Amino acid sequence: MDNETHNASQLLSPHNARNLFDSVDAFLFDCDGVIWKGDSLIDGVPETLEMLRSKGKKLVFVTNNSTKSTRQYANKFSSLGITVTEDEIFSSSLAAAMFLKVNGFPREKKVYVLGEEGILEELELAGFTGVGGPEDGTKTVQLKPNSLFEHDKSVGAVVVGLDQYVNYYKLQYGTLCIRENPGCLFIGTNRDAVGHMTDLQEWPGAGCMVAAICGSTQKEPIVVGKPSTFMMDFLLQKFLISTTRMCMVGDRLDTDILFGQNAGCKTLLVFSGVTTQSTLEDPSNDIRPDYYTSKVSGVLNLLEF
Amino acid sequence: MDNETHNASQLLSPHNARNLFDSVDAFLFDCDGVIWKGDSLIDGVPETLEMLRSKGKKLVFVTNNSTKSTRQYANKFSSLGITVTEDEIFSSSLAAAMFLKVNGFPREKKVYVLGEEGILEELELAGFTGVGGPEDGTKTVQLKPNSLFEHDKSVGAVVVGLDQYVNYYKLQYGTLCIRENPGCLFIGTNRDAVGHMTDLQEWPGAGCMVAAICGSTQKEPIVVGKPSTFMMDFLLQKFLISTTRMCMVGDRLDTDILFGQNAGCKTLLVFSGVTTQSTLEDPSNDIRPDYYTSKVSGVLNLLEF
Repeated sequence: MDNETHNASQLLSPHNARNLFDSVDAFLFDCDGVIWKGDSLIDGVPETLEMLRSKGKKLVFVTNNSTKSTRQYANKFSSLGITVTEDEIFSSSLAAAMFLKVNGFPREKKVYVLGEEGILEELELAGFTGVGGPEDGTKTVQLKPNSLFEHDKSVGAVVVGLDQYVNYYKLQYGTLCIRENPGCLFIGTNRDAVGHMTDLQEWPGAGCMVAAICGSTQKEPIVVGKPSTFMMDFLLQKFLISTTRMCMVGDRLDTDILFGQNAGCKTLLVFSGVTTQSTLEDPSNDIRPDYYTSKVSGVLNLLEF
Repeated sequence: MDNETHNASQLLSPHNARNLFDSVDAFLFDCDGVIWKGDSLIDGVPETLEMLRSKGKKLVFVTNNSTKSTRQYANKFSSLGITVTEDEIFSSSLAAAMFLKVNGFPREKKVYVLGEEGILEELELAGFTGVGGPEDGTKTVQLKPNSLFEHDKSVGAVVVGLDQYVNYYKLQYGTLCIRENPGCLFIGTNRDAVGHMTDLQEWPGAGCMVAAICGSTQKEPIVVGKPSTFMMDFLLQKFLISTTRMCMVGDRLDTDILFGQNAGCKTLLVFSGVTTQSTLEDPSNDIRPDYYTSKVSGVLNLLEF
């Protein structure tokens, strides 16, 4: 088998879908563009998840979208008619809080959030004090002589995630903390360029806000979401399954598929989100999933029991 | 003379200040951090500029700050008690409009502005139709099912500059134009990380907004402000002075001094803005001006007539 053949991705077929199914004990799903687009379920998802559960497969949901906490994601699944428990969900908001926890971030220090509610909720659950977030979304700045923009010197970390309420106040606040508070951490939940915040189109993702803070601070963030495998340790502790017996299912090459490959999982790309078949096949792309199919229900439709 | 000696910057002294003065016919000044901080003049500036004019030196002001047009900058100088004419001012807002003009940007296409009033005014003076800008600063987005964020398909260029009213609406608008309108240009006025928007502190600069759009589009901008020498051709046409007989005076290594060096000018760094002596001398810095002094009045104080 030459190198090219070895690296080629395979279209999911009745034959290899069976092989994939038999060789995997846990399916890890991205959410935006895989399970749903915005608030709309993608066709065939509930039946596919139900089939996998009925066959004893573990289901895990790994999302880079930090706007919700794992509790809020469980509620979102429930509102869409799918039962998923909180401990099956690994969001980048949770990852940010876990990163601070495992690195012994001091409880007396604060965390400035350039992001939404999900990050604040996970910080609180982990015992940290988050500031900023949605309530700074209505604040404005005064560029006036002798007027000093004050920031909290006890902020020891800035967490930047997707933020539809991003403004100059928050950008200045986060920038000042990172530039002026000694040792202040700069944590990016993820760097997705865009995402399906609504069903009909893509919107700037956390990669936009993270890049903005890189631009003003000239520093690079610690990224805790995909493609970083930071969350994999927690996932392994909970599920006790070897990563070689896992399959990561996602719509993004540079986050989902790379995450799966970095962690040693099998990978399945779906075209129901941001990636098209022509992007996959473009010579400039060097991230190749093991398998690809149109959407998650491809797995269901190809299997016969 | 070994290489290290050759590359060393010289502290301005009575001796080399005289050499600099005699070898230069035009002084090019950055504004923020050199002439003023926010709306406060830096000490000794009026007397220095007056002395240079009285000795027959040409004065030119080259600013990366795109929030004002050259007309608005002339007004700002005037309000600070300094007479400067519009044609002595080269702002990155003017540079953006000139870039479109010399590249034959079609008049029937529109230009989306993620930036402030200065860019819109220069676009209009150059005969182009700018949209966006300040009026989009109050707009909000609705992340709702079946709700499509519409953008103008006739936008052929997005100009991104410093914008204290940046928001998710503008980020999505600029991103959609660049990603979806075929051939749409992405122009950054400049990439300054921070700047003295007020006298007391620094704030995120255009580098923050430009990076945000890089993050969401995964494209790199055409940069028209410093350190790009795009404006130098216009400056040379107007002043007919060889760049070797010019001295660029600025407070930033990676924009002002690099611009001067890229254009073949002499360079003078002042410490009245964002750069400190320790930054200049840090081993990680490889941009070395010919001369450095505390502020522009250093030139005045060292010369005797």
